[in-house]
Amino acid sequence: MTGIAEILEEIAAAMAAAEDRGKVADYIPELAGVDPNQFGIAVVLADGTELVAGDAATPFSIQSISKVFALTLALGRLGDRLWQRVGREPSGYAFNSILQLEQEQGIPRNPFINAGAIVVTDAVLAGHAPREYLGELLRFIRMAADDEDIHINRDVAKSETETGHRNFALAHYLSAFGNLMNPPDRALGAYFHQCAVEMTCLQLARAGRFLMRAEGGPRLVSAERVRRINALMMTCGHYDGSGEFAFRVGLPGKSGVGGGILVIAPGRASIAVWSPGLNENGNSQLGTAAVEMLARRAGWSVFG
Amino acid sequence: MTGIAEILEEIAAAMAAAEDRGKVADYIPELAGVDPNQFGIAVVLADGTELVAGDAATPFSIQSISKVFALTLALGRLGDRLWQRVGREPSGYAFNSILQLEQEQGIPRNPFINAGAIVVTDAVLAGHAPREYLGELLRFIRMAADDEDIHINRDVAKSETETGHRNFALAHYLSAFGNLMNPPDRALGAYFHQCAVEMTCLQLARAGRFLMRAEGGPRLVSAERVRRINALMMTCGHYDGSGEFAFRVGLPGKSGVGGGILVIAPGRASIAVWSPGLNENGNSQLGTAAVEMLARRAGWSVFG
Amino acid sequence: MTGIAEILEEIAAAMAAAEDRGKVADYIPELAGVDPNQFGIAVVLADGTELVAGDAATPFSIQSISKVFALTLALGRLGDRLWQRVGREPSGYAFNSILQLEQEQGIPRNPFINAGAIVVTDAVLAGHAPREYLGELLRFIRMAADDEDIHINRDVAKSETETGHRNFALAHYLSAFGNLMNPPDRALGAYFHQCAVEMTCLQLARAGRFLMRAEGGPRLVSAERVRRINALMMTCGHYDGSGEFAFRVGLPGKSGVGGGILVIAPGRASIAVWSPGLNENGNSQLGTAAVEMLARRAGWSVFG
Amino acid sequence: MTGIAEILEEIAAAMAAAEDRGKVADYIPELAGVDPNQFGIAVVLADGTELVAGDAATPFSIQSISKVFALTLALGRLGDRLWQRVGREPSGYAFNSILQLEQEQGIPRNPFINAGAIVVTDAVLAGHAPREYLGELLRFIRMAADDEDIHINRDVAKSETETGHRNFALAHYLSAFGNLMNPPDRALGAYFHQCAVEMTCLQLARAGRFLMRAEGGPRLVSAERVRRINALMMTCGHYDGSGEFAFRVGLPGKSGVGGGILVIAPGRASIAVWSPGLNENGNSQLGTAAVEMLARRAGWSVFG
Repeated sequence: MTGIAEILEEIAAAMAAAEDRGKVADYIPELAGVDPNQFGIAVVLADGTELVAGDAATPFSIQSISKVFALTLALGRLGDRLWQRVGREPSGYAFNSILQLEQEQGIPRNPFINAGAIVVTDAVLAGHAPREYLGELLRFIRMAADDEDIHINRDVAKSETETGHRNFALAHYLSAFGNLMNPPDRALGAYFHQCAVEMTCLQLARAGRFLMRAEGGPRLVSAERVRRINALMMTCGHYDGSGEFAFRVGLPGKSGVGGGILVIAPGRASIAVWSPGLNENGNSQLGTAAVEMLARRAGWSVFG
Repeated sequence: MTGIAEILEEIAAAMAAAEDRGKVADYIPELAGVDPNQFGIAVVLADGTELVAGDAATPFSIQSISKVFALTLALGRLGDRLWQRVGREPSGYAFNSILQLEQEQGIPRNPFINAGAIVVTDAVLAGHAPREYLGELLRFIRMAADDEDIHINRDVAKSETETGHRNFALAHYLSAFGNLMNPPDRALGAYFHQCAVEMTCLQLARAGRFLMRAEGGPRLVSAERVRRINALMMTCGHYDGSGEFAFRVGLPGKSGVGGGILVIAPGRASIAVWSPGLNENGNSQLGTAAVEMLARRAGWSVFG
Repeated sequence: MTGIAEILEEIAAAMAAAEDRGKVADYIPELAGVDPNQFGIAVVLADGTELVAGDAATPFSIQSISKVFALTLALGRLGDRLWQRVGREPSGYAFNSILQLEQEQGIPRNPFINAGAIVVTDAVLAGHAPREYLGELLRFIRMAADDEDIHINRDVAKSETETGHRNFALAHYLSAFGNLMNPPDRALGAYFHQCAVEMTCLQLARAGRFLMRAEGGPRLVSAERVRRINALMMTCGHYDGSGEFAFRVGLPGKSGVGGGILVIAPGRASIAVWSPGLNENGNSQLGTAAVEMLARRAGWSVFG
Repeated sequence: MTGIAEILEEIAAAMAAAEDRGKVADYIPELAGVDPNQFGIAVVLADGTELVAGDAATPFSIQSISKVFALTLALGRLGDRLWQRVGREPSGYAFNSILQLEQEQGIPRNPFINAGAIVVTDAVLAGHAPREYLGELLRFIRMAADDEDIHINRDVAKSETETGHRNFALAHYLSAFGNLMNPPDRALGAYFHQCAVEMTCLQLARAGRFLMRAEGGPRLVSAERVRRINALMMTCGHYDGSGEFAFRVGLPGKSGVGGGILVIAPGRASIAVWSPGLNENGNSQLGTAAVEMLARRAGWSVFG
């Protein structure tokens, strides 16, 4: 697989030279200071080969990428009952919009916008303490990545708690519609810590292997469920930039405001890319460009 | 490929027995009288094999499926300049919603909602007479289907013209924002006739072959463009039911209120299904169920 | 009443010296060329005294002020049945917004936004020819003003017809919801001509006397109906600037994009003011300032 | 003034016999148990005459009527600077809507919808403890009513705190836009207690005298400010039922979900009415009917 390795080196070089690197998210103070000049990429191929380039060994805050793992847990716990509380359609609004929640009576459009992800966390949390939920989530991620060295950055979680007024608004609003089982403080406590998980590109690419479903790869969930999670990542994984990502990259993916993106080439590869600067939709500017190049060069688009 | 043939027979039998067949669209009087008990499916495989079941030889009104062909023409004519006038994101609203057009200053969200499709038709129409545009569109569809026997039903077009107040509202609204080059009457004249093209399932599946991009198949447009059209069908092809279709079927598709759906399994098959009864999002109820069964049984989902 | 006369002179002087005169509406080409340096005001007191200052004898296009007269006719014709087709609440959106019409199923919020006014005209028009409707409207206005020299400017009506895409969109949208009895073209033909009535400030102030309901004044409609029309002018007469007008002026009024405003001080005065430059809500900038001064100096606010 | 006394008796009799009494608000548990069969009305005339009928001596929770007193304090404290943080337009949405807050970047439409009232309370609260704010508010109300026996019901405040998720959502949302100076918990602590003030109809009618501005009456604020507060009550005092109230009653008023309404007939009377059952807009059903009768019979509409 020398081909992919070379492509990754070219991508890393191109990204190192990029001038417009987007803008680091500043609404989580603890993340605002991250150096925007970083870029990393890691690819795990179907045969298990691992390829990296750039800052692939630097841990970053996975933020909303955690929603993929939480959704997987929630579907394992509740199955299709989850869909009574959250929809499966792209939202057409920003990730933290509350407007649609009013129009649609407290049912978030999908599990990847913030409101939907808070419902997902709340559903798994059930009556348990946030600590237990976070323990289960970490166990799942570590198992998927086959790596115990994955942790939550409590300073980031704390920073988000202190400034997360929009998320508090969403949680209280969900409560007002009876779509939150736990008190808003508790659900958000779990949610903010979940978002503060830190991983390297290589760890994240490994953790995504179960969504690639390669021959002989890990089988953490059924084929049917993998397809559905990938479908949701394709239509909703990049908020109101999801159509654009599908158009340019052609692969299911989930971004986080920390600048990471997990991208799945079904049957072929699990890809993690990271660069802290974001575009106007809140998705990594260079990360998106990098996976676009990779998908085109490798011929991995699911669309032909 | 006996396997697929058998699957199609089983699907046709299941659909013949289905009780909840959805509701035939009644806002186009000429279509309201179509017998809801019909169901047809046609598949063209990558090797050129053609398989049919049910009423695959009955012509039906392709309606919004025509937007795929019009978009292909528009991209051929304007290239990426088209995207200055129409977006590439799922809309989150119904196919004929005007609300978003006001919020977003006359730029339709994507080329598959009505407002966007009117812009696409207007862009191809340019200063030409609707007759010329329709001639070009029919030539393209006939070439793609390799079949000269494809026509426009002028009674359907007339029926739509007389009752198409929402589309007239959209066209005038686009004009108000300077996003329509032709007078609303002329652009809609072309649009209503485009929607009134009639095809059988087999003709439609053949016409979709260029989006499958099989080895040795027709190469009407570049690989890059095929991928992009498929991506748009995946994220926007079923209006506010696009997420659901991706979740259940896992293939790019475009539906029409006549009850047809064109579905592409990239590299594997071009599929056309038709049954006149619609679900709440305006997409064929049995058609959706049928391609869901087919995709699952054949293992064609792009999501693994 | 020397007091009011002096106030009017002071107002006219202040307005002549004003630097920020707003912006003349440019979306109706025929009106775009009006000289923004004009200002006129006319007041008819309860005892019949008439006072004028500035360009009070220059005819201007009354535009949306005509909605008050059309509403009066409609209530005379249909009574409370009118309210099945149009609401009585402020809209919170711009005068030509279509968004709310979609959210509220084709029932315009009130008779003074464009959509509502089109419904009102349509209701009076019934099956008659626009010519008959316009004849009736002119007769009513002339009777109210006691002046036969009031006419429709057909060039303005024609100009509006050619550029009135937003109004065409509204009319077709109303049709789509079954809330227009006449074909959109016919209803709008009547509507555009109604808006093109030309009057001087003095004529308009006289025409408004029936809403003042002074002792011995004209009694064209019942006291109950006068109160209700005034109430609608207070809450909805200035589109999304209605709250501001009530806050600053404290009197019911109806503005038009021609720069005129009809203002009623119940029991005390009928006031017409005109200056072509508009503020951001589409209401006369100097006209609003002038009636604010007048209401304060004369102590005419209904709010104490 | 025997006339008004007789009208009040007739009104009280009519209301006692009314069958459709609306629905008692149930989202504040502590208020859900109030007996819907109660009705009271009190009128203070310009000459100081006080007239009552029905349950005019029964204390009720004034709820949103408190927003009038808080606004008066805020204008006294901040003057026109207040309008940088809150608008003056009717909202067109329900009292607790959050949608508009997103569309308009955290600036509530007016001081009488919940979001706007929370901003007003927050502005007066400044850095002080809620206890101090509430002390100041009670002193103001008691002075206006000339009655020391007016208190806060802490059980009601507590009940609202426990179930007020929509208000918590609004407060956090305001914080997210930087339009809340105090922590949401503290601002809402003050707000919920402010809403839990209890008064009788007679106390409330007396407290409203300063807005009537009768000769020799209390002069707590300037004439200019009184007019502006009355204007806001007219256009925004009944949420998305404000237009209807102006249309039917023709007087400025402010309702509360406890079933009370404070209504001002400028220069003539201060009126308080109470009946716990609400109409669909959240305003007292019988209270509205009662003041409609009173205004018509007494000829008090400001609209002629």
